Amino acid sequence: MKMNSPIGLFDSGVGGLTVFREIVRLLPSEDVVYFGDVGRYPYGGRSKEIITQFTRQDIAFLLEHDVKFIICACNSASSVALEEVIGDYEIELIGVIEPGARAAVNKTKNSRIGIIGTHATIGSNAYAKVIHSLDSDMKVFSLACPLFVPLAEEAYIEKEATYLIAKDYLQTMHDVGIDTLVLGCTHYPLLKKVISEVMGDTVTLIDSGEETAKEVRQKLVKTNLINSKTSEIPPINGDYNFFVSDVPDKFSSIATRFLGHHMEKITRVDISRYPAKLEL
Amino acid sequence: MKMNSPIGLFDSGVGGLTVFREIVRLLPSEDVVYFGDVGRYPYGGRSKEIITQFTRQDIAFLLEHDVKFIICACNSASSVALEEVIGDYEIELIGVIEPGARAAVNKTKNSRIGIIGTHATIGSNAYAKVIHSLDSDMKVFSLACPLFVPLAEEAYIEKEATYLIAKDYLQTMHDVGIDTLVLGCTHYPLLKKVISEVMGDTVTLIDSGEETAKEVRQKLVKTNLINSKTSEIPPINGDYNFFVSDVPDKFSSIATRFLGHHMEKITRVDISRYPAKLEL
Repeated sequence: MKMNSPIGLFDSGVGGLTVFREIVRLLPSEDVVYFGDVGRYPYGGRSKEIITQFTRQDIAFLLEHDVKFIICACNSASSVALEEVIGDYEIELIGVIEPGARAAVNKTKNSRIGIIGTHATIGSNAYAKVIHSLDSDMKVFSLACPLFVPLAEEAYIEKEATYLIAKDYLQTMHDVGIDTLVLGCTHYPLLKKVISEVMGDTVTLIDSGEETAKEVRQKLVKTNLINSKTSEIPPINGDYNFFVSDVPDKFSSIATRFLGHHMEKITRVDISRYPAKLEL
Repeated sequence: MKMNSPIGLFDSGVGGLTVFREIVRLLPSEDVVYFGDVGRYPYGGRSKEIITQFTRQDIAFLLEHDVKFIICACNSASSVALEEVIGDYEIELIGVIEPGARAAVNKTKNSRIGIIGTHATIGSNAYAKVIHSLDSDMKVFSLACPLFVPLAEEAYIEKEATYLIAKDYLQTMHDVGIDTLVLGCTHYPLLKKVISEVMGDTVTLIDSGEETAKEVRQKLVKTNLINSKTSEIPPINGDYNFFVSDVPDKFSSIATRFLGHHMEKITRVDISRYPAKLEL
């Protein structure tokens, strides 16, 4: 494992680009290998068993690229699979739950935190567990908002229907008086505007992806794994390679919308040929 | 291939249950093997290439069960993959496009037909091609309504937001004056009420799944493949076996809602071990 190896990042699809964008902003000289499982997205409605199999395949793919650190940018995989697999690999693996949970505990003033995410993330209770391990006095309210993913994917955002769905989902969060809401799915930051409109000014939104990028920087600094290009003058930008499990067209166009510029290196991968079980 | 072999039916997930229900209604003595690819649904946003690979795996699985006939109940797979693979198998394979298209041509009075479906189905232009091969004077208007699938899956049906989305999608269908609308996705019949409310009384809705079941019965009669139990007195019901590519829980609960009674035989299958390419 070398300091100049790339950071590996995987997600069920395009949502992880919100985490990638933060990594690029905070660590502009780091190389990144991104794997987006667009051939099998979304993960959030699937079982723990199959998400764990997919996660092992995604990790096996990144390990082949000699990465120095792996970020699981998908909240569903972080919630239901990471704990299960983390002990089986030597490399450092970080999910998005702990950084998001920690930020929420630090932000809340009334100790009432809301969590929204997919069926898999909410069903796992992963955020509540971490929050309670940090501070057992916290009150946590969790809610699955499964329609937010297709609405964000379809860019169906500035619409009355989306506002009504958000209001319908989030009314109970309002009623229980949370002051902090964790966006526990990488797609949800795309709906930030409508979510904050529904929740009002008094509620702070936490973007787990953003918090995860901050934590990655801290960890790389602490373990002396910051890329040596970082200290060059003038600064040298990182190299970015994207891999996807379906043809790259759709990923490419969504990535362009997400990142504001065209992506060049996007390669198709047959993810089914990577081991879904741990090979002993 | 024996008359008493089961009918094979596959779909990307639960949507094909609408076709299964019609088969049971029209052919109550037939045995059915159903495969639902819930571990990799939905197909409708994926590429032709990957849908074709998934389709070959689904067919390979059903062939292992010695079926006499295969129904591709998924509109997306029927649209983009069936034509590509159909010549490679000896068994009779039927999709949902031709029956739906034929019914629309028979129903329309003003020769203006609307087609709604997933991105894959609409992008393929499959319905329009079949309709024009039957009658080149027909005017066909096609539209992707991708949010209808998650809305149906989440049972988010009797809601104002769903009505607004349907109105938003279907307004152009109204404007161009169609008198017949094909529900080109097995999930859409679940939204029939809201779709017909938006379209009004003058527009006939065609359920491709229903039409496909009718065509299957005709074909079995014509080829003397009707199960011999059909002529027993009293009538003997068929045997139904369900297979899914993720844990059966969610499929089971949605199936119960769809069919109005509890399903017993649901088995998990590892679909990734079936060949995604034709083996020569």
